[in-house]
Amino acid sequence: MEKEEIVVIGFWTSPYAMRVQIALEEKGVSYHYVEEENLFHNKSPLLLQSNPVHKKVPVLIHNGNPVCESLVILQYIDDVWKDGNLLLSEDPYQRAKARFWVNFFDTKIADCGRRMWASKGQDQQAAKEEFLESLRLLEGELGDKAYFGGENFGLLDIALIPFSCRFYTYEMFCKFSVQKECPKLMEWVIKCNQRESVSKNLPDPYKVYNFVLEVKKKLGN
Amino acid sequence: MEKEEIVVIGFWTSPYAMRVQIALEEKGVSYHYVEEENLFHNKSPLLLQSNPVHKKVPVLIHNGNPVCESLVILQYIDDVWKDGNLLLSEDPYQRAKARFWVNFFDTKIADCGRRMWASKGQDQQAAKEEFLESLRLLEGELGDKAYFGGENFGLLDIALIPFSCRFYTYEMFCKFSVQKECPKLMEWVIKCNQRESVSKNLPDPYKVYNFVLEVKKKLGN
Repeated sequence: MEKEEIVVIGFWTSPYAMRVQIALEEKGVSYHYVEEENLFHNKSPLLLQSNPVHKKVPVLIHNGNPVCESLVILQYIDDVWKDGNLLLSEDPYQRAKARFWVNFFDTKIADCGRRMWASKGQDQQAAKEEFLESLRLLEGELGDKAYFGGENFGLLDIALIPFSCRFYTYEMFCKFSVQKECPKLMEWVIKCNQRESVSKNLPDPYKVYNFVLEVKKKLGN
Repeated sequence: MEKEEIVVIGFWTSPYAMRVQIALEEKGVSYHYVEEENLFHNKSPLLLQSNPVHKKVPVLIHNGNPVCESLVILQYIDDVWKDGNLLLSEDPYQRAKARFWVNFFDTKIADCGRRMWASKGQDQQAAKEEFLESLRLLEGELGDKAYFGGENFGLLDIALIPFSCRFYTYEMFCKFSVQKECPKLMEWVIKCNQRESVSKNLPDPYKVYNFVLEVKKKLGN
């Protein structure tokens, strides 16, 4: 088999990019990581050329073919590298459930995140409540399973776990404790962090918090 | 094989529900259709029970198991009924491209739709421009192919075609012609409508327009 060229364009605080890195590690696939140094002010020609529609990280470039949008990439990875752990179950109903909850997370929770640190007063409070309500729903879906994928660390686990490195930031801005509100979910976070694929790709929550403080300062809010 | 119970909960103007109906027809799967009569004011116990998170149509209930969110349902249908036309190509890169464009459509275009009839002035104009820019991108992706899925009427075709029954409404409110702006896309619309799966499930554009006029009146805008 020809040597494959696999490039990931990411940004160190992007949970969407971490998803891709974790998935590739889980599959045992080596890749070349390219940090998009100046994501906010001066996007690289490589990024613009490989994701002309959204101009966002992450992008996976596989033998010259760019794949964009983290969930599309995760499913691509599962479709191409079938030897490692399957990210999606072989059972259609379990696949549908995983896709449903990832979609729920991406449409509901991701938006709350920014509002929790960028807004104030009632809007911040509403975002916090929405966030916690969503986490509780996810905790219900986790139930007594080891992972969202059952015994298998799967698509939904990979999609959610990168956001745990933002919990500290949310807790600081909104004065709550994920541990106290969703203790079972935090057990899951700890279990996931015991996997090398996760621990080596998630940045230090304090660094993420400091980064957000800097961004807020620059935005003047 | 046991007789399967397949129920679709939909609403006659919902393009998302039409996606599911078209996909099942393409697979040659018989189903029982349940119209959610009072979607806006008094949702049915069946809908609330089978989609407690979003409380939206469509829902596919397969042998008692509810599957929600149209794209999740389409992929579920493709995973379960492998005998009919494949909605997603077997080639991972083609699958990724179809998923990317459906995602693009659902995040960008669907939102413009409402703004084109519910807003006025600058916001309406901006929505129209955004809509047309997105249609042009899609037209570029279609290129000279018969369908977005090449020779195969696939996931992206099924996801997009239901929205064509809203074009007339958009044209009336925003004073433009999709035919004039995107002639190749309109050729594709006509070709899709030659399929029974499409023609029997898409409502008359004039009826959709009248429905939108009524909704606007009730909203008092």
